[in-house]
Amino acid sequence: MDDVLQNIMDHAVAVAREAGQVVREALCDEKQRDVMTKSSTVDLVTQTDQRVEHLIIQSVKKKFPTHRFIGEESVAAGEACVLTDDPTWIIDPIDGTTNFVHSFPFVAVSIGFSVDKKIQFGVVYSCLEDKMFTARRGKGAFCNGEPLQVSDQEDVRRSIIATEFGSNRETETVEKIFSSLRNILNIPVHGVRGAGTAAVNMCLVASGCVEAYYEVGVHVWDVAAGSVIVEEAGGVLMDVEGGPVDLMSRRIVAANNGTVAHRIVKEIDAFSPTRDDEDSSCRAEL
Amino acid sequence: MDDVLQNIMDHAVAVAREAGQVVREALCDEKQRDVMTKSSTVDLVTQTDQRVEHLIIQSVKKKFPTHRFIGEESVAAGEACVLTDDPTWIIDPIDGTTNFVHSFPFVAVSIGFSVDKKIQFGVVYSCLEDKMFTARRGKGAFCNGEPLQVSDQEDVRRSIIATEFGSNRETETVEKIFSSLRNILNIPVHGVRGAGTAAVNMCLVASGCVEAYYEVGVHVWDVAAGSVIVEEAGGVLMDVEGGPVDLMSRRIVAANNGTVAHRIVKEIDAFSPTRDDEDSSCRAEL
Repeated sequence: MDDVLQNIMDHAVAVAREAGQVVREALCDEKQRDVMTKSSTVDLVTQTDQRVEHLIIQSVKKKFPTHRFIGEESVAAGEACVLTDDPTWIIDPIDGTTNFVHSFPFVAVSIGFSVDKKIQFGVVYSCLEDKMFTARRGKGAFCNGEPLQVSDQEDVRRSIIATEFGSNRETETVEKIFSSLRNILNIPVHGVRGAGTAAVNMCLVASGCVEAYYEVGVHVWDVAAGSVIVEEAGGVLMDVEGGPVDLMSRRIVAANNGTVAHRIVKEIDAFSPTRDDEDSSCRAEL
Repeated sequence: MDDVLQNIMDHAVAVAREAGQVVREALCDEKQRDVMTKSSTVDLVTQTDQRVEHLIIQSVKKKFPTHRFIGEESVAAGEACVLTDDPTWIIDPIDGTTNFVHSFPFVAVSIGFSVDKKIQFGVVYSCLEDKMFTARRGKGAFCNGEPLQVSDQEDVRRSIIATEFGSNRETETVEKIFSSLRNILNIPVHGVRGAGTAAVNMCLVASGCVEAYYEVGVHVWDVAAGSVIVEEAGGVLMDVEGGPVDLMSRRIVAANNGTVAHRIVKEIDAFSPTRDDEDSSCRAEL
């Protein structure tokens, strides 16, 4: 399996780079950043998201015709979001669509690959920064070929924490997000940041630039690739209430170590959005 | 005055680049990122902040011995923070010290130059991105020589707004900051971001990546250079209660246009920190 897997991962890196090139070119063309909305008026999608996902899936299908897919835009279009034991590509063609629409400098192509329901490798291409983050389980994490290592900080008060406000603007959700944020800020921590993309936030954890990232409301395609990148850089994953992470649960803590992760968890006002594998657009397919 | 001013600005660009090189090198040396604290446990300073400010001031003094200075670290060390009609360099050696300590990718050297109490030019060198932002009053704004133009978005609901939590963790202040943030998020806007440096946030406005940036708690050295960069890119400055901006007041709105600026102002829960030119460390000198 080893060589086969490396072959698949090499293809993922190549197609992520190709996709990133398309995203960069689209940035120069106002039309390709024309906005449509999804779950709310601030949950954005562009024709470029759909075009890039199509490009990735077609390229993979040609080479690996039996593989399955979970893609952000395919799921939005009604396809199932179910993880089986089969080799499955979990794709976010543009993580950070709002950033993309505004040319804000963090925009990523995110590709995770799972077998037996376990992520085997992850590729995150932060295409405006031209940073290619890669990790294969058991083989370390890298950025443009350089090994990544999480921060060795044990004291949360000397940490930067990353999170996002998300695109849900329902009062109850916003209140929970603010409550967690206020608690964490008041620990106090050095600072709170958010790149505007889960994939890049996780790569910032892997790179040691932030100690932890947490969010409720992410999707499996936002975090599949990043999850293995964080773990292979020496970090830990956790549910926002402290148990083991479940990538379909839309809840995640990614941290440099267990001490910081557990400390953050204490401050999070958790809630449970509809799971990715229970969303109505999926259930129709089951 | 024209050629003289250009000569001074050229020197500012050269010394900002030199300072940025020192900052980049210091990132690789853990010792040079050792943290001391200032007004609170999360208001950080490093020996590199002080070393870089010294480097800039010495370099300028050699060439322009009659010029005055307002520097973040000199003021912290007790020097006066008073703007006179004299030619004055307003310097933040490292805007984004917390980012610097954590290698978070936005760290800027910020240099504004004022004559007759008016900022004549601004230089912001985002040294990890290697982006040199420059603007001279009446002559346009540039990034690495390419002209900058603010976003033409008039609808705040299609905007990204930048702000920061700052380093004040007093309950009343934190509550005001959260109140403004909640109001703005709920307009709703496309998103809220923060680079972790006022200077870079203002350059993001000038670049059209975010529509507006606001903050209460900034200092004159954080915003002096950025102010002319925003205006020369076609943007506007405003106080957080809608009047004319006062760079010593520690309150600022920088936006792509008046429509967005006025809309943001409506949502800000304003307060008034001690002015930079009334701070006790300055009054002692007056």
